[in-house]
Amino acid sequence: MSLLFILDLAGTFFFAISGAMVAVKKNMDLFGIIVLGTVTAIGGGTLREVLLGQFPPFAFRQDLYFSLAIIGSMFTFLFMEQLLRIRSVVLLADAVGLGTFVTIGVLRALEMNTTYTSAIILGTITATAGGMIRDVLAGEIPFVLTRDFYAVSCIIGGIFFIILHRVGVTPDLVMALTTLLVIILRVFAIRYGWTLPRPH
Amino acid sequence: MSLLFILDLAGTFFFAISGAMVAVKKNMDLFGIIVLGTVTAIGGGTLREVLLGQFPPFAFRQDLYFSLAIIGSMFTFLFMEQLLRIRSVVLLADAVGLGTFVTIGVLRALEMNTTYTSAIILGTITATAGGMIRDVLAGEIPFVLTRDFYAVSCIIGGIFFIILHRVGVTPDLVMALTTLLVIILRVFAIRYGWTLPRPH
Amino acid sequence: MSLLFILDLAGTFFFAISGAMVAVKKNMDLFGIIVLGTVTAIGGGTLREVLLGQFPPFAFRQDLYFSLAIIGSMFTFLFMEQLLRIRSVVLLADAVGLGTFVTIGVLRALEMNTTYTSAIILGTITATAGGMIRDVLAGEIPFVLTRDFYAVSCIIGGIFFIILHRVGVTPDLVMALTTLLVIILRVFAIRYGWTLPRPH
Repeated sequence: MSLLFILDLAGTFFFAISGAMVAVKKNMDLFGIIVLGTVTAIGGGTLREVLLGQFPPFAFRQDLYFSLAIIGSMFTFLFMEQLLRIRSVVLLADAVGLGTFVTIGVLRALEMNTTYTSAIILGTITATAGGMIRDVLAGEIPFVLTRDFYAVSCIIGGIFFIILHRVGVTPDLVMALTTLLVIILRVFAIRYGWTLPRPH
Repeated sequence: MSLLFILDLAGTFFFAISGAMVAVKKNMDLFGIIVLGTVTAIGGGTLREVLLGQFPPFAFRQDLYFSLAIIGSMFTFLFMEQLLRIRSVVLLADAVGLGTFVTIGVLRALEMNTTYTSAIILGTITATAGGMIRDVLAGEIPFVLTRDFYAVSCIIGGIFFIILHRVGVTPDLVMALTTLLVIILRVFAIRYGWTLPRPH
Repeated sequence: MSLLFILDLAGTFFFAISGAMVAVKKNMDLFGIIVLGTVTAIGGGTLREVLLGQFPPFAFRQDLYFSLAIIGSMFTFLFMEQLLRIRSVVLLADAVGLGTFVTIGVLRALEMNTTYTSAIILGTITATAGGMIRDVLAGEIPFVLTRDFYAVSCIIGGIFFIILHRVGVTPDLVMALTTLLVIILRVFAIRYGWTLPRPH
């Protein structure tokens, strides 16, 4: 659990960078950069907690998540050029956030006794909804709806979590393996250009 | 009530088709098609339940609605060409969903003792918010804000529901007549090109 | 408190005008104008109450706010030309709404024992989220993310509220001074073209 907590904080920071980078590309000002970074970092988890009826959502219960998101956004504001030069590191960091957020989302949903289907959907929402809001605020169609394998990594991770959970694997191992699987799927998807079918 | 339940399931399926068709036109991949179909089908009812404080919202309490929405979306992915050829059938199916969702929305709001105004607004939200989210995710201004009579059918239906309810018509009849009225208004609006006034 | 209530109603009316004006510019029909006016007027406060777990949100508990928002929207529909001619009056009215909404947002958040950071963020959400939803529905990048000092006035107002509150100023005075400060900051920002830094 404490590894998951550290990964959660790291994921929040990395997702804020990904959101802030979109804002910089759109020529937003410092406030816009912080809003896009923060929404990307905490939007998915916040939507999950709203749907599960948990108020106020986690980020509003202590200052840790907002602080990390704001620091990640300001860091991007200052070091955008350097971040663009280490693009593959940024993508790997984003994959770590993706895996962690899926795992936390499925875990929190199961704790509230949702159905397995709902848990997988809430895990995917946790990992992808922040980025979708980011893209909408940036005036773009959410990239997760049009390109590559991003969300499918989350769904596969969610299904994998449920299977391990059902066959009695210990919670810590379930979480570690799910996070790892999503990261690996994401990295492979980028490396080999995996995409989903489209209508002809 | 059991007729309303069947219409609700049918409406969910039809709305998913309408959402998925927008995604196909936008050249989204299979994940995007399922997201747009599902959001269109359950987005309005989910927003209504969030605003009424009912958690988790209906679609997350059993797998029926997500299953229908996903099947409707995949059906559209496979048979888009055929659906385009029976355009008027698709529009009629959409009208059935519209009437049903308005009726369910007003009913659920009144069960929670909202004001009549709020009940009419929540009925309209139930029927139109999913389509508005669909259009925003597709990068479009929600069509309901710019064209024709779509939402006004819902508002008139909501007012009609309240009046019948007030004069003591039995609940089953109120629901059947409201659903029917909205369907008829929608069909007439399409057939005769009814529009709302615009500023000059 | 009763002055704040009057300002709240005035702010609701003025924000509805600002939302409806965007809809008119986008050539939306009467329904679109009312939706954009209403969303701008009550969207921020509604999102705040959802995040704080207060259901149904204020606007759904009595008809006053919806009535004011709809009247403000229809007023704009009828008198758009005249409103465009008194542009600086409209901007001042909007500033009054901004100051009031920040103050109410911070106050309501503190009443629910959130952290100070969350209270400042919820005050800013109360004042700006409605306008952000308005811009997204109009197919635009929210102007608050790209231009000028709008949101920063809210953040400074929120910090100012917390400081006065901490040093023991009476609640009525805290609210009056915060509202006034935000209005003044907004007016100065417009007059002198204050902007935020952007990445180069």
